[in-house]
Amino acid sequence: MQLDREIVERLLERWPVARLVTLGRDGRPHVVPIVFARHGGHLWSPVDAKPKAARELARVRNVRTRPEVSVLLDHYDADWTMLWWLRVDGRASAVEAGDPTSQGSLELVASALRAKYPQYASVQLFRGKPLLLRIAIEQMRSWCAGPEAARAASEGVLER
Amino acid sequence: MQLDREIVERLLERWPVARLVTLGRDGRPHVVPIVFARHGGHLWSPVDAKPKAARELARVRNVRTRPEVSVLLDHYDADWTMLWWLRVDGRASAVEAGDPTSQGSLELVASALRAKYPQYASVQLFRGKPLLLRIAIEQMRSWCAGPEAARAASEGVLER
Repeated sequence: MQLDREIVERLLERWPVARLVTLGRDGRPHVVPIVFARHGGHLWSPVDAKPKAARELARVRNVRTRPEVSVLLDHYDADWTMLWWLRVDGRASAVEAGDPTSQGSLELVASALRAKYPQYASVQLFRGKPLLLRIAIEQMRSWCAGPEAARAASEGVLER
Repeated sequence: MQLDREIVERLLERWPVARLVTLGRDGRPHVVPIVFARHGGHLWSPVDAKPKAARELARVRNVRTRPEVSVLLDHYDADWTMLWWLRVDGRASAVEAGDPTSQGSLELVASALRAKYPQYASVQLFRGKPLLLRIAIEQMRSWCAGPEAARAASEGVLER
């Protein structure tokens, strides 16, 4: 059973976490949890929010050469009648402050991220120059175990 | 900060959900939530447990031609000091009942799955011929936000 379009829209707006898959130069997959916000029909994920190693993150290096990405939103529950997932296949690009393509949108994206994640009141959104992955949605697929799972997904909120 | 080896071992034994990335023939990534159990040093994920489409699942088709997989265990929490992830890169193969390579192990794997997931008391573990993905671990990487996250990960249990 698929998720209704309306539920999908709500999850893309409200669900707090996703798993992002990028591809390395060697073609191997790389998967990492991300936070994200939607703006202008794209998903935007900040790169600089939490303590990380100094060199450019693998996900950023990867999309510079291989833009194909897959993003999974899903909910695990010990009650398996509550399971659902939503997979977004798309193309990602790294967008930095100052890029011609980012003009105007980065402030709105930052606002969307701050509105979605109150955590950014105490966690720095960007260290230094803002850098984000912008994901253009090409295709979506979803699955849910049944009507109860769809109802839970339609609430679109993860409590913990 | 990485997770201690002991915590990693516990997560591989107890954490109930992971996200599995496989690669399609076209090289594009495919990501899906999975349940799994560890047996004989491998991760084993049953393919047939929940209602699915009739033709062979993408993850199975994929590993038949591209065995490279990535598996992510992670915890999202509104408290970002509690975040952690564990990524397992490996090689997967589809193992069916009756395969010479599966002799003896499939019953033990089924026991491990039933012990880990009480849900299999009411959900059928396999429909028809047992089919599993066996993932040989090649490399692991982990990250946690700090000592509190490590402590939570060491409990290795997801309540909901």
